[in-house]
Amino acid sequence: MVKGAILAIGDELLSGRVFNTTSFLAAERLYRAGYRILEIVTVGDEKSEIVFQLKRLLEKVDFLIVSGGLGPTEDDLTNEAVAEALSLKLVPRPEILSRIRENERAQGLKPNVLRDKMAYLPEGAEPLADDLAVAGYLLKYQGKPLFFLPGVPSQFGKLLEEKVLPQLFKLYPPREAVFTKTLRFFDLREAEINQAVKELKAEGVEFGFYPVFPEVHLTITARAKTEEEARNRVLLVTEALKTRFPEHLFGEDGEELPQVLGRLLGEKGKTLSVAESCTGGLMASLITRIPGSSEYFIGGAVTYANEAKMKTLGVPERFLRLFGAVSREVALSMAEGARKHFGTDFALSVTGIAGPSGGSSEKPVGTVWIGLSAPTETVARRFLFPGTRYEIQTLTAYTALDWLRRYLLHDTLFPRYRFARED
Amino acid sequence: MVKGAILAIGDELLSGRVFNTTSFLAAERLYRAGYRILEIVTVGDEKSEIVFQLKRLLEKVDFLIVSGGLGPTEDDLTNEAVAEALSLKLVPRPEILSRIRENERAQGLKPNVLRDKMAYLPEGAEPLADDLAVAGYLLKYQGKPLFFLPGVPSQFGKLLEEKVLPQLFKLYPPREAVFTKTLRFFDLREAEINQAVKELKAEGVEFGFYPVFPEVHLTITARAKTEEEARNRVLLVTEALKTRFPEHLFGEDGEELPQVLGRLLGEKGKTLSVAESCTGGLMASLITRIPGSSEYFIGGAVTYANEAKMKTLGVPERFLRLFGAVSREVALSMAEGARKHFGTDFALSVTGIAGPSGGSSEKPVGTVWIGLSAPTETVARRFLFPGTRYEIQTLTAYTALDWLRRYLLHDTLFPRYRFARED
Repeated sequence: MVKGAILAIGDELLSGRVFNTTSFLAAERLYRAGYRILEIVTVGDEKSEIVFQLKRLLEKVDFLIVSGGLGPTEDDLTNEAVAEALSLKLVPRPEILSRIRENERAQGLKPNVLRDKMAYLPEGAEPLADDLAVAGYLLKYQGKPLFFLPGVPSQFGKLLEEKVLPQLFKLYPPREAVFTKTLRFFDLREAEINQAVKELKAEGVEFGFYPVFPEVHLTITARAKTEEEARNRVLLVTEALKTRFPEHLFGEDGEELPQVLGRLLGEKGKTLSVAESCTGGLMASLITRIPGSSEYFIGGAVTYANEAKMKTLGVPERFLRLFGAVSREVALSMAEGARKHFGTDFALSVTGIAGPSGGSSEKPVGTVWIGLSAPTETVARRFLFPGTRYEIQTLTAYTALDWLRRYLLHDTLFPRYRFARED
Repeated sequence: MVKGAILAIGDELLSGRVFNTTSFLAAERLYRAGYRILEIVTVGDEKSEIVFQLKRLLEKVDFLIVSGGLGPTEDDLTNEAVAEALSLKLVPRPEILSRIRENERAQGLKPNVLRDKMAYLPEGAEPLADDLAVAGYLLKYQGKPLFFLPGVPSQFGKLLEEKVLPQLFKLYPPREAVFTKTLRFFDLREAEINQAVKELKAEGVEFGFYPVFPEVHLTITARAKTEEEARNRVLLVTEALKTRFPEHLFGEDGEELPQVLGRLLGEKGKTLSVAESCTGGLMASLITRIPGSSEYFIGGAVTYANEAKMKTLGVPERFLRLFGAVSREVALSMAEGARKHFGTDFALSVTGIAGPSGGSSEKPVGTVWIGLSAPTETVARRFLFPGTRYEIQTLTAYTALDWLRRYLLHDTLFPRYRFARED
């Protein structure tokens, strides 16, 4: 079995200021790809340590993934360490140098020689990013591929998926085929999914549970002689879980909830608007992160103050006076107001208490009214969400979007939600 | 300086099934306590590997923290590995054996000899938990303390705080105090900050650079005889950098940019509203994540469609027809419209092309007009932001908020921004 090691570089990791995400990411992906990781090592920004570990690890592995220390600052020492450990020269790469100057010009900056060090790579290094926009290169040493990647998790993850894994597959074709799928659940507990998975008694598949607030992700992995066999095993389980959780299993792999909702609205040619109080724009923001959302999203009103609720959405002043801003009446009126104002098929409204202050015994922090206005009817429901201000805002926004998703999908006006408090 | 290392044991860590929380926990606490960690190593449930690492790490450190592999199952091999690495016998501990039997009775389980292995510790081991309820022991080898702790984060954390750190303090009284501060910058490159830091020629402080998109964080750490001396060294540098970057250094430690802006608005008793197109609610969302934002934030309009811009904000239809939605005129009109509609002292507006589609040669993806409406004047500026849709939306929202922050702070209506394209 092909053996590898992961080396993470950075004082911030040794001091516990920053969580070592990159190593975790790499370990997870390489394992699923069928490779065996012998060690994950973290060292600080100290050249001698980096040199020592590079030499040591090279002796026992077939490939190496290194992250961090490629930046322009003084504490970025990876390239020098590589040069010393493998006794290679550091040679300037004109294409990277000019890219650095380009960026400086594009951003109206003076040329800064400090940045040049990023262009001095060990001889033989093959830069990984096509556009050279991010650091990172492959270095083959004694036939072993050594991948040097940036410590920034997003950049690391992108290069890992798009460059490192494909190259590894070429150099060390996995002996078994591996197929993995991620199923995304909303409003279900890990334990409930785990229970269902157990009952499936699925053969030859591994499960991984990853709570990614506010969702739960389940990865299903199968290893088999052929890709097809592996895929079939995974799909068998996937179908079973779809039947078991037709409402809570909302998407697969990269599919996000706002994206699924957007696809449904697009398919039906319907439009959406939102009226937000306690989520303060988060709902609209989640919707508009999706490319092409302008096709179905018309607009939103963030009516934080009562005056704004009245003026923008036409919430009657007496509702606010008689029932309070956090009430069924105001949620209904906000949803209808948004639907009228923006002239959309659907509108979602949210009014509640995200905390930390503002709660009362009657309306504690986490109390939220969500309104859904459809062409045929407008309804509102009360929820009681747990957690911090941000968690309450996030659970609220996702629940509202999910409610419309389930309405469009199953025509269920009142799907069950664990945080719903019907009354 | 006292040097230590952290060794985590477990296949689940190498396969990325489980975050390595224990090492992160230990690293953070030990660093704050003034000890220096040389390495954090993770290996699988393989005896030879554990033996190898124990021997290797013992050579270079004064103390060792090991987690995992103390349980009753077959893949728990730490004790055997310790015995082999340090050539010590494993001896049964009657007090632990009887504790195991007790637990079995308490839980109505049959006596299970498999569990007995947990009672066989290397000779000289001193169990850590007073009640022996959880595994874990201290072993002194050649005068060096080796702590073996359970892999369960909660148990690990408890023993770390209550047993490991006190013992370490006794054996190695911290010679120095440590003081750390994080400075947060916006619209400055890592390299520019690094340049300034070098020019300071600061003595006895360490610097760490962390790009936390869209900010850059600089951590300043000083170790000294006394806490006060360490703090003073850090504050000296902090003051120097505040003078050097009065506009870009917006906050310290946990202080977020929307929080700083909110504090300024609160102090001046001013109110804010926003009008968003391409940021789609992100600006409002960033503002309202801050507790107490209702004191200064009145509301926002997410006017994604042109009709919404006209209806909610009173953007003249001819502006949209003559100049297009992404134009100075529309940005100005949106900002003024929001300020009027919500009746606030200030309003920020945003209209642009977040991509990936919708760009043109004349208005490429990333083109954004930001408007600022103040009681005395309303202005708009053109920006060209790089990156993905989400990065463009984030840079836009932060730049708008930062623009108002700098206006309130320095009265500068046109502060310099690297992505600004004045015309």
